[in-house]
Amino acid sequence: MVNINQDHWTTSRWEQEIRVRLGEATDGQAPLVNINADDTREFDAIFLGGGAGGRFGAAYLRAMGGRPLIIDRWPFLGGSCPHHACVPHHVFSDVAAQLMLERTFSGRLWFQDMQGKMVSIREIVEMFRRGRTGPHAFMNFQSKEQLDLEFVLGSRARIVDAHTLAVGGQIYHANNLVLSTGASPKPFTIDTQGMEGVFNYASLVDTLEYEPGPTVVVVGGGKTAIEYGCFFNATGRRTIIVSRHQPLTMINDAETRAYLLERMAEQGMEFWANAELTAIEGDGRVNAVAIRTISGGIKKVETDFVFLGLGERPNSQEAQETLGVEVDTNGAVKVDTRMQTSIPNVYAVGDLVGSPMEMFKARKGGMYAARNIMGEEAHYHFKKYPDFMHTHYEVCWLGLGEEQARERYRNVVVLKLPPDNPDGQSVALPAGDRMMLYVMMKPHLSGFQKLVIDGDTRRIVGAFHVGCGAKDGFQYLAPMVRNGLTVDELGEMDELFLNPSYFIQLCRLRAGSKVLRGM
Amino acid sequence: MVNINQDHWTTSRWEQEIRVRLGEATDGQAPLVNINADDTREFDAIFLGGGAGGRFGAAYLRAMGGRPLIIDRWPFLGGSCPHHACVPHHVFSDVAAQLMLERTFSGRLWFQDMQGKMVSIREIVEMFRRGRTGPHAFMNFQSKEQLDLEFVLGSRARIVDAHTLAVGGQIYHANNLVLSTGASPKPFTIDTQGMEGVFNYASLVDTLEYEPGPTVVVVGGGKTAIEYGCFFNATGRRTIIVSRHQPLTMINDAETRAYLLERMAEQGMEFWANAELTAIEGDGRVNAVAIRTISGGIKKVETDFVFLGLGERPNSQEAQETLGVEVDTNGAVKVDTRMQTSIPNVYAVGDLVGSPMEMFKARKGGMYAARNIMGEEAHYHFKKYPDFMHTHYEVCWLGLGEEQARERYRNVVVLKLPPDNPDGQSVALPAGDRMMLYVMMKPHLSGFQKLVIDGDTRRIVGAFHVGCGAKDGFQYLAPMVRNGLTVDELGEMDELFLNPSYFIQLCRLRAGSKVLRGM
Repeated sequence: MVNINQDHWTTSRWEQEIRVRLGEATDGQAPLVNINADDTREFDAIFLGGGAGGRFGAAYLRAMGGRPLIIDRWPFLGGSCPHHACVPHHVFSDVAAQLMLERTFSGRLWFQDMQGKMVSIREIVEMFRRGRTGPHAFMNFQSKEQLDLEFVLGSRARIVDAHTLAVGGQIYHANNLVLSTGASPKPFTIDTQGMEGVFNYASLVDTLEYEPGPTVVVVGGGKTAIEYGCFFNATGRRTIIVSRHQPLTMINDAETRAYLLERMAEQGMEFWANAELTAIEGDGRVNAVAIRTISGGIKKVETDFVFLGLGERPNSQEAQETLGVEVDTNGAVKVDTRMQTSIPNVYAVGDLVGSPMEMFKARKGGMYAARNIMGEEAHYHFKKYPDFMHTHYEVCWLGLGEEQARERYRNVVVLKLPPDNPDGQSVALPAGDRMMLYVMMKPHLSGFQKLVIDGDTRRIVGAFHVGCGAKDGFQYLAPMVRNGLTVDELGEMDELFLNPSYFIQLCRLRAGSKVLRGM
Repeated sequence: MVNINQDHWTTSRWEQEIRVRLGEATDGQAPLVNINADDTREFDAIFLGGGAGGRFGAAYLRAMGGRPLIIDRWPFLGGSCPHHACVPHHVFSDVAAQLMLERTFSGRLWFQDMQGKMVSIREIVEMFRRGRTGPHAFMNFQSKEQLDLEFVLGSRARIVDAHTLAVGGQIYHANNLVLSTGASPKPFTIDTQGMEGVFNYASLVDTLEYEPGPTVVVVGGGKTAIEYGCFFNATGRRTIIVSRHQPLTMINDAETRAYLLERMAEQGMEFWANAELTAIEGDGRVNAVAIRTISGGIKKVETDFVFLGLGERPNSQEAQETLGVEVDTNGAVKVDTRMQTSIPNVYAVGDLVGSPMEMFKARKGGMYAARNIMGEEAHYHFKKYPDFMHTHYEVCWLGLGEEQARERYRNVVVLKLPPDNPDGQSVALPAGDRMMLYVMMKPHLSGFQKLVIDGDTRRIVGAFHVGCGAKDGFQYLAPMVRNGLTVDELGEMDELFLNPSYFIQLCRLRAGSKVLRGM
């Protein structure tokens, strides 16, 4: 056991340490311990898992004056997000956006000729594998030096009972236990053990060691499948998305979905919907897959690279077995609005408590667990939330889609760009940051956006944006929409033109009329 | 006179028409008229100038049931924004961001070798010159087909009196006149008439016909000077910014300014502050300039390309001469909060009424003029507003900088990324869309952000962001901050992680503490 409590490592020092430890087998390592030996208080809570929920929960509890301890099997805090999930996804989505731009303008202006150019996936993955220790190091630095968090990292803990964990030969006690062990990619129905070439988001960045060939098969129709699919496609590979259902159903507006699907088709992505992967062939490494298509027939596709985007399941097994916490049919630990499980003094937060497995929900769950542990009665009332995903674009949405709104309201008004017009999408608006070359040379690629309004109350009930730069705005729009934001109020705000979303000015153009009209 | 009222042109038809007309001398053209001959009402207002203020004002007045007429010398609506100002600025800033990325990763991954590569400014300008007719066409289409606006375009009007304009051999009467004639680049103290090679933002896109050489001299320290300077720099040219004062003073936070200046210096930009251009030499085209530097000495710089970013002055001369409207010492037409000038029934909006010459102010001014003309008593109370500019980055700010806040509050708390730490800016956070390759490989280039808080009331008093994707968010944050948004409220919002601004989660990490701490 190495207690570094008296050391104050820089981020670069942390980065070196994490690199070394990630290179070793985790289980054999002595844990990396930051415990303040001068603090003789019992821990108010042990957070098992230092990802989004555990780290934010511990920080909040600490800020309230309590004493938390985080225990995590990895040598860094932050959990799967910087290691496997959000951070690589954003790196790959940035690459997809960048490559789509370069391919669109290949050979024009200063752009290089991208004709027939296949970009290395392996190099990009290796770049991420080297680069991810930077965010890891930051999390450790911030947690120790700024948030005063105590932790035991880099060794797997065993749950002894609801107050006790064992790790690295030590026993740690606390008044409460907060389970924050996250989720893992769902296993595939086909056994692919021992077969190289079948990846999920986690194994891709951890284990890819060869250059994938020219064809990629992605299984799934959810966010991960499409986000990674767009990245593979942008590298110049044939990319087939095999899904049991129609893709993009998480985006609850038909026109927004259609815009996205048309753009993906234009980039050459193939959607095989109502289809299923039935076999994976290969000797050592995959060399082909069999797909049952919508017609019922089986098609064989030669490929050495299969990506599974099948969703995740909560890592609840140990807590079930040792503590007996109740779980639902998906294995998610059941909690009440105070984040309490079925076992007294045991809380659960984050992906472990099931969908939606969103960052804000994990972090806020941690915060609410902390408040309750510290004696408040604080209920986390989960609300409708804004959401996003990437294709080659950044896509954001909140509230009701147009069809949903029409079911609920008699007078739905829609403001959108481009508007319905005889030239369709080939119209040079919307225009915003990082979309301007499209606006100038390929306007139909410059994005799509829509505001859905209840014309009678003049309230905004939904918003959709495809392009770049609306994500931050959707965070702040969401609570305003929840509080009844009207077109008149939106029209009074001050836009930073060319603002990526044109919502403010579109509202202003219509707000003068007592009877709202669409556009 | 061509009245197209019964025609319904598509955006592509409009684009053809605008292209032809922009190719001709404006003054000789028959105006392009859209007047509804069946409407026998007197016009409620003529908007002289169909830019931001005129077009939005006319749209609002029309939505209220009134009858506006827009008259503009250009064959399109939207004014200087799509033709000379916001749109080209955003195109050039996108190019700067893209080229900085390509230069930073030159020869790595799939990036082309940019070593020593000078990118053509002329080609980019020509691309814009062709492409700008797309937004022009959209404005005309939207104004006619969606906003039902009547207009007379493509011919210069003469003000006859406060109710009467003459254009293209016709006389138009209205109950009110709204002056919306905008502003033009300030002339330079050195006479450069007849000398090729001295440009402002307008003449650059209209008249550049040669490829600038390897050195650019930019005069001015304001937004335009720096935005265009960064673009020239990114093309691979030596770029010298000559300004009388320190640059970037419009950004009211020293640390944010310092981050930006360091990054620009790193890209090779040269700031010659407390300096002045004293002579421009050349025979036909510029070949050198003389600059008095901070030391008082004169330096000669060989260049064939000088860019003037000297600000703008209102186009108020005709209205002064014919109507006698009062103007201030800068030539800005004086208006009250109802947008009324000193002359009854004459209103003025937009850049014509002086600084700040912002899009939202022009558009909202038009809206308030319309409401007053239509019989309301509506006062435009101009408020503090969020602002932005581009360097190679997108930069947004609102409220008080740290220094200003410390003057006003005894307990100022700052949350920022990267935080103060021994590695300085070389820390892999912040991370957000379009910044991810920097995060992975050149973290100190991944941006800077800061939230300034009054620790006693826990209210946000200022926000600063350098990176990409915060512009939309700042629009919506601004009214919340004005209404007293606290760290606790911000910490309760739902972030869309990796959100470009980390404000929500940084607040949450500190909100648990009764005594707020910085980070």
